Amino acid sequence: MDTREAAFLRQFETKEVEGSPSPFMNWLKPLILKVEEGSLVFQYTVRPEMTNPFGTLHGGVMAAMIDDAMGATLIVYGEKVFHVTVNLSVDYFASARAGDVIIAETRVVKKGRQIVNIHADVWNEDKTRLLAKGYSNLIKTDIK
Amino acid sequence: MDTREAAFLRQFETKEVEGSPSPFMNWLKPLILKVEEGSLVFQYTVRPEMTNPFGTLHGGVMAAMIDDAMGATLIVYGEKVFHVTVNLSVDYFASARAGDVIIAETRVVKKGRQIVNIHADVWNEDKTRLLAKGYSNLIKTDIK
Amino acid sequence: MDTREAAFLRQFETKEVEGSPSPFMNWLKPLILKVEEGSLVFQYTVRPEMTNPFGTLHGGVMAAMIDDAMGATLIVYGEKVFHVTVNLSVDYFASARAGDVIIAETRVVKKGRQIVNIHADVWNEDKTRLLAKGYSNLIKTDIK
Amino acid sequence: MDTREAAFLRQFETKEVEGSPSPFMNWLKPLILKVEEGSLVFQYTVRPEMTNPFGTLHGGVMAAMIDDAMGATLIVYGEKVFHVTVNLSVDYFASARAGDVIIAETRVVKKGRQIVNIHADVWNEDKTRLLAKGYSNLIKTDIK
Repeated sequence: MDTREAAFLRQFETKEVEGSPSPFMNWLKPLILKVEEGSLVFQYTVRPEMTNPFGTLHGGVMAAMIDDAMGATLIVYGEKVFHVTVNLSVDYFASARAGDVIIAETRVVKKGRQIVNIHADVWNEDKTRLLAKGYSNLIKTDIK
Repeated sequence: MDTREAAFLRQFETKEVEGSPSPFMNWLKPLILKVEEGSLVFQYTVRPEMTNPFGTLHGGVMAAMIDDAMGATLIVYGEKVFHVTVNLSVDYFASARAGDVIIAETRVVKKGRQIVNIHADVWNEDKTRLLAKGYSNLIKTDIK
Repeated sequence: MDTREAAFLRQFETKEVEGSPSPFMNWLKPLILKVEEGSLVFQYTVRPEMTNPFGTLHGGVMAAMIDDAMGATLIVYGEKVFHVTVNLSVDYFASARAGDVIIAETRVVKKGRQIVNIHADVWNEDKTRLLAKGYSNLIKTDIK
Repeated sequence: MDTREAAFLRQFETKEVEGSPSPFMNWLKPLILKVEEGSLVFQYTVRPEMTNPFGTLHGGVMAAMIDDAMGATLIVYGEKVFHVTVNLSVDYFASARAGDVIIAETRVVKKGRQIVNIHADVWNEDKTRLLAKGYSNLIKTDIK
């Protein structure tokens, strides 16, 4: 894997993202654990502002983490195309509390000529508990 | 509609949510335009920190707005039960830019004994352009 | 609405489909109640071979009816392009029994340059009970 | 694995289902390749009546196969409860032609107290090509 984009993300491995060109990714503040072609592993710390009235990670933030990690996965290919999300589905199994560390792992399932299908699993820190699974289809656009 | 919860939300009509017990809802900072049994209308202003590298509203934040507005809709029923999201699906059609005002409208489609199905539409400010649609199933739990 | 395809489907209005070029549509045997640009109404009679061990309409057949009615809706535009389904989601609310008549109504939500988003509602005969809702994204292809 | 239901399904291993109490499963006519707790492998032969106007497997039938194989997977647990499908999502990657043999593999992802999440992959015969992926949530009911 040797795209410039992969190298860019690689420099963040085991560091928290801060100066990303994506303001919302900076808010999610992932720690990049692994960067591969077709797969990324991001780690997040659940902050109080990410929680719902029950003190657990807001389902909407979980969906946002999944969507963001998926988008970053496609950047690694380094293609001079932009992908737009057609649809995102999330199945929820469990949550996490403020202060908890959670892990998001993405995996490109099918990279077609126009559509890319990608999955993500969200785990608790030691990966003994699956918190959510996400599935998304993205389409290549002409935007550069 | 006369539940205590509805009255609670009603007091925010045409005001921005600030002191909600949901920290992430406070971050999304909706302005509540309408509160009805089975339907809410929330208005959001897209802030720079909600955007992606292209300067448009991050798809993950759009999903989070949809999820949050749906959850608030169920609170209005004022039942002494808590609903947990089973799944959330979002179809994306268009985006918005920082500074834009957008509208999320929810609607309970089916309120079953155990499962509630709810939809949300996200529009641009004057509702001439549909930005996204979301569909979710939530389940009643014993948590009080 | 005056495409050749619309006219083709129109001739079946209030008749059961039989000689369709789609063998599986012939198996589903819809009665076409309405053909409009962007919307179709199909009526089906639940046959015993469409049921599950509980004697009710098999959820898989319900999904198949939704997918088939959606595909037919796009044909009406009469464009010389073929649409391929990217994804299909179905939310289930209730079922029907063998002998019951049910109604599927489709509606194109967004017709983009590449992607078409379409919804379908499935009702009991007098439309007092919603049985299922389906949502699908299809992509234009070069196949003629 | 020793439930009566598992034993019932096991007797069909490497045989085509014929006298199932599910009329629509008999129509799909799966050959049961493997029965395990939490996972099934079904094989289907695409028949002409399962195809669309392009002579390929109708997407609706693919969804129906996925839904049916998922339901059968839950029967193997032998619990005296009935599961109802809350939602089904299918992502489509490729199709198959009449006469082709295809494989559906299911896997229970999460078996909660009320909700079961299950996935299915559909492959071509030698499993070199992924045709579709399905994801479903089912809920336990009191129906016996």
